[in-house]
Amino acid sequence: MQLKSLSKIFSPNSIAIIGASHERGKVGYEIVNNLLNGKFKKEIFLINPKGGKILGKKVFKNIFEVKEKIDLAIIVVPSIICPQVLEEVGQEGIKYAIIISAGFKEFGVEGAKIEEKIKKIAEKYEISFLGPNCLGLINPYQNLNASFGANLPEKKGNIFFLSQSGAILCGFLDLADQNNLGFSKIVSLGNKANLSENDFLEFALNDPQTKVVLAYLESFVDGKKTIEILKNNPQKPLILLKAGVSEKGKKAASLHTGSLAGSNEAFEAFIKKTNVIKADSLKDLFNLVKGFSFQNLSEKNKIAILTNAGGLGVLGTDAIEKFKVKSLKLKVESSLELVKLNEETKDFLRKKLPLSCSLENPVDIIGDAKADRYKIALEAILKDKNVSAVLVFLTPQKMTEPEKTAEIIVSFFKKYKKPIFTCFFGQKSVEKAIKILEKNNIPNFDTPEKAVEVIQKMLGNNQIFEETKNINQLIISEKQKIEKVLDKACSQKNLEPEKVAEILKICKIPYPKFVIAFSEDEAINKAKELFYPLAMKTAGSEILHKQDVGGVKLNLKNEQEVKKAYQEIVKNISNIAGDKNNKEIKKVIIQEMVTSGEEIIIGMKRDEQFGPLIMFGLGGIFVEVLKDVSFGIAPLNYNEAKEMIYSIKGYDILKGARGGKEKDIDSIIEILLKISELSIAFPQIKEIDLNPVKVFEKGYSILDFKFILF
Amino acid sequence: MQLKSLSKIFSPNSIAIIGASHERGKVGYEIVNNLLNGKFKKEIFLINPKGGKILGKKVFKNIFEVKEKIDLAIIVVPSIICPQVLEEVGQEGIKYAIIISAGFKEFGVEGAKIEEKIKKIAEKYEISFLGPNCLGLINPYQNLNASFGANLPEKKGNIFFLSQSGAILCGFLDLADQNNLGFSKIVSLGNKANLSENDFLEFALNDPQTKVVLAYLESFVDGKKTIEILKNNPQKPLILLKAGVSEKGKKAASLHTGSLAGSNEAFEAFIKKTNVIKADSLKDLFNLVKGFSFQNLSEKNKIAILTNAGGLGVLGTDAIEKFKVKSLKLKVESSLELVKLNEETKDFLRKKLPLSCSLENPVDIIGDAKADRYKIALEAILKDKNVSAVLVFLTPQKMTEPEKTAEIIVSFFKKYKKPIFTCFFGQKSVEKAIKILEKNNIPNFDTPEKAVEVIQKMLGNNQIFEETKNINQLIISEKQKIEKVLDKACSQKNLEPEKVAEILKICKIPYPKFVIAFSEDEAINKAKELFYPLAMKTAGSEILHKQDVGGVKLNLKNEQEVKKAYQEIVKNISNIAGDKNNKEIKKVIIQEMVTSGEEIIIGMKRDEQFGPLIMFGLGGIFVEVLKDVSFGIAPLNYNEAKEMIYSIKGYDILKGARGGKEKDIDSIIEILLKISELSIAFPQIKEIDLNPVKVFEKGYSILDFKFILF
Repeated sequence: MQLKSLSKIFSPNSIAIIGASHERGKVGYEIVNNLLNGKFKKEIFLINPKGGKILGKKVFKNIFEVKEKIDLAIIVVPSIICPQVLEEVGQEGIKYAIIISAGFKEFGVEGAKIEEKIKKIAEKYEISFLGPNCLGLINPYQNLNASFGANLPEKKGNIFFLSQSGAILCGFLDLADQNNLGFSKIVSLGNKANLSENDFLEFALNDPQTKVVLAYLESFVDGKKTIEILKNNPQKPLILLKAGVSEKGKKAASLHTGSLAGSNEAFEAFIKKTNVIKADSLKDLFNLVKGFSFQNLSEKNKIAILTNAGGLGVLGTDAIEKFKVKSLKLKVESSLELVKLNEETKDFLRKKLPLSCSLENPVDIIGDAKADRYKIALEAILKDKNVSAVLVFLTPQKMTEPEKTAEIIVSFFKKYKKPIFTCFFGQKSVEKAIKILEKNNIPNFDTPEKAVEVIQKMLGNNQIFEETKNINQLIISEKQKIEKVLDKACSQKNLEPEKVAEILKICKIPYPKFVIAFSEDEAINKAKELFYPLAMKTAGSEILHKQDVGGVKLNLKNEQEVKKAYQEIVKNISNIAGDKNNKEIKKVIIQEMVTSGEEIIIGMKRDEQFGPLIMFGLGGIFVEVLKDVSFGIAPLNYNEAKEMIYSIKGYDILKGARGGKEKDIDSIIEILLKISELSIAFPQIKEIDLNPVKVFEKGYSILDFKFILF
Repeated sequence: MQLKSLSKIFSPNSIAIIGASHERGKVGYEIVNNLLNGKFKKEIFLINPKGGKILGKKVFKNIFEVKEKIDLAIIVVPSIICPQVLEEVGQEGIKYAIIISAGFKEFGVEGAKIEEKIKKIAEKYEISFLGPNCLGLINPYQNLNASFGANLPEKKGNIFFLSQSGAILCGFLDLADQNNLGFSKIVSLGNKANLSENDFLEFALNDPQTKVVLAYLESFVDGKKTIEILKNNPQKPLILLKAGVSEKGKKAASLHTGSLAGSNEAFEAFIKKTNVIKADSLKDLFNLVKGFSFQNLSEKNKIAILTNAGGLGVLGTDAIEKFKVKSLKLKVESSLELVKLNEETKDFLRKKLPLSCSLENPVDIIGDAKADRYKIALEAILKDKNVSAVLVFLTPQKMTEPEKTAEIIVSFFKKYKKPIFTCFFGQKSVEKAIKILEKNNIPNFDTPEKAVEVIQKMLGNNQIFEETKNINQLIISEKQKIEKVLDKACSQKNLEPEKVAEILKICKIPYPKFVIAFSEDEAINKAKELFYPLAMKTAGSEILHKQDVGGVKLNLKNEQEVKKAYQEIVKNISNIAGDKNNKEIKKVIIQEMVTSGEEIIIGMKRDEQFGPLIMFGLGGIFVEVLKDVSFGIAPLNYNEAKEMIYSIKGYDILKGARGGKEKDIDSIIEILLKISELSIAFPQIKEIDLNPVKVFEKGYSILDFKFILF
């Protein structure tokens, strides 16, 4: 679906409210009331078959009575008559609508039918609509409050708020109102029958009034599209709270990769790929948006802490240390750092502050600090060239002057333009001071830990992973050859090994030499083409987990052992096979053993929301017991593939821990990129398991492989 | 140190304030002011050499002028004259003091000297004192405000608050004041020169007015004592925020165990051992104490959620799922569970609620729910026998009636006596409602996630780990034998292998048969006593990490290989040894190889705060790459040892993952208990490494061992 221009829905020149009500308390009345109170400057037409007046304004009996051009229709009629109303909207040539009415998909089967109807009508007339079952939207810059929420704030600001729950939107705005948060646009998404988060996200990321996008989502309509939109707008932060995390999706999969890759893993891979800032709770969402909306953090990470309580300083330092460890694990380079203050700064402070103050960062001006001591210390710290941002802590003690201190902070923030964050810890005694701070865009947080967490996430957001070019692993002629192989195999679910091998060969992915045999004699004869020791595996297309059913024999050293292995495998498979005469039972693959190298696993499954999910892990216990695997969403670029390898816990094994030699990590990146490309180019492939793969000091070999087709 | 009776310090019959000041704003004035304003009913004597009157009350020139018996001296004189004042206090026979004055250890070397002086004086006169450098204490039940904090609340309640930071105490009380939290006692610990957290903790856990203990600590004076106190009082929750987490301690250690066991690992082991509730931030501390102070949670975990917003319900459910996963990891049985409502309850709700409400838990009474709908639904849910607690969510929407709803919740809470927790999400619109709730002991939390987290921790606290008897592994005669071995070895740091083996033998800890040799010939000859294949290792007492220096040769199959191995080892060791003629260079240990079994590591190091820290992990990459180890503090009981084994990530390996046989986990518990007992009985042992240990399907064997003595 083409993304739509949404400027008319946010800045219409004229609005018709279809279903405007005369009755106070009804949604059709409240929305009119909100629009008129909001001092929206453009035309408003009220529509109700009863006619008359609402709030002193003329009511038209139907939209055809309105002679002027209507840009946007707001529909608040019962769901059952929505299709008819939308037909009329279409006939009138109105291209944008907000369907507030409830009674659709959320009401069960009957409602869902009506929803399908309005979707079709919208398609026919090319109408873009928000909803149904939503609160509406607000554009403070147009004084447009096209919602029926109670006392929704309309403070102008830089936050684009997108919510899939009207109720959570109300609570959040109530919270925001008390903390000086201003909005560029507010959208209640409702059932997303037509316009979805993707349409609004694309608009928001290109909206000059928007600095940060805030989203509460319970589902994605098209995660792949979301990734594309975010990749094209890497500079504007999106803070996302996703509700409805679940384990579903794992059960449906047939291969190893699938059983490890649930929708939650896919969502985490999405977060990693897009650099979206994930909020872990509603409070987190609120704290993060405060930081991002109020302040700009340069890429510099040198922070100074100023406090009147040693304890708060320790807690802040602990939090910085905690995040440092986490960041190292993620191989992110720039963690927050407690800056070493200049000697001149310390000399100055030494002269000006009481003896018992601590001049090392955190600077502790101790419990009896009044506002004047904060003033001296804060100015010196802000002047220090080493310092890129300041965290000011205050707890109300006997001599503390919270409000006066807040005013000093505000004035220095304006003067020195360095980012300042605060934690005025307490409640009654600091309430007024916090209001002063936040009114002036200095975000205050409940605790030192929370302040550090937000700053760290703001810093992380500056770290756009370098977008390396997608080095194409496959050329067109190769793709055409693969297409042909797959075409011939389209009736098979579990692609036969010869065909998989053909595809791997085209992709220049190496695997050990093998032969296929359908009888004992053939096995013995064909084994002569190979070097001992050998491995033999059943190649029946219906057997997915060969090892579990006695379908694998390893380390065969001579003809005798090949013979015996064949007999045993066929016997084992016969025992479990439904159709005893099936030729597949007799089919085995015999291949040369590879005993050296480190075992890894690579796989792919398709996630409903985000598309192909590539998996990487070390083999054996790492994948089976420790579930130490990483995921990435295709198409992968070089850095993403590298990050996948880095981020497993057992990474040091590949680097040669415990006296081993370093393995060929570049070659692993190469396979990951090739599998990524295959999964994008060939949607008919449902799942891939390369397990085990052996990685050597140079190169690799795929010891076993499975492709499952749709 | 013997713990002291503290009732006189909290409930004195008479107080002398030494250093009472005439000057408003001074600490010596404010504390008098606080005491008089607090309506303390007993005698107060003001002492100041100037005499006169303060706030209309007579001032004595010194304590000797006071003829009545004084129970408690509050000292607010400059630190320099504190020793003299304390002497006088001692001479007067006063046994309890609070030293408010600053200017001690926190002021550097000179201050520390004065602190040592007052400690000695207190010892001489058997004075117990709080401080110095503290805010004082408050006992609301005696109207005793012996602190100089500003506007400290004195609301009676059930929280015992212990803080090592006066500043954090002030901020926290400011926060508590607005949320109806009441206190049984409030103590500012200061420098802990005499009375420490242990004294107050023991008092608090036995104090009938105290239901929950809240502590902010930056250090432990004696962690072992703390464990003992907590173990004797398992029923009263202690919520602890520990600041100053660090990595120190790891570097100082010489063995493997030591390098993995830092002070943070020891602290986590302390938390696990004592069932203390760890707070992760100041806000967390606050949320937890609200839950524990206001509500009682039975051991039952069946919770129902009632909400007017689907989104909040989803977030609450997500949080419950999240904790469930975490709890499974910890092998804690009872996680919070969304209860299945009775069919009768659902039938009733179906009749009474609008069609579009969701009757499955979470019960969603949708956005237009007024107070009456909450009333119908909440009562039905509370009446449901399956339900043990209720979480009520509310977000302010157009029709919502927060205050009326709060009142309904309060009345049902009183009627049905089931625990109720709420999240009224928002700010301005719900402020008054939240006050109504909290005034009636219904804790409200910022977000659904936080509410679930607190409830989960309250449930966890009911799960006192069954205290199994310490099955003594060693009898007295064995201990005496070990003592003798150690006595003879007291000059050695790295105990020689023969002696370690002797100790292990006494403990009935099996190890492979071995011999010691000092020359090539001896090696060849003695090897005849053993079964091939053999392992040879340098046994020089100065070599701690044998493998790293070429001091280990494995899998020797015959005399020839033994000879070669001996030559190589001695050559390798000679190369690095300082003294080439040292006999130790030529000393090797030859032992029978053990090739079967799963490799594990067991160790012990002594933590400064908590005593012997026992480590367990799987060997090889698990310990070296993944650091997958667990810790426990000695003395371990059976369940603690079992939990240590359970809690490693690779546990399934021992259970026989990947087709292996289950290993003898009981025998691992046995070694852990024996090492625990050894570490308690023999403080002269500094560190122990048993690495590797092989565990079989039945029994185990210690392949390599090191004991480091002090």
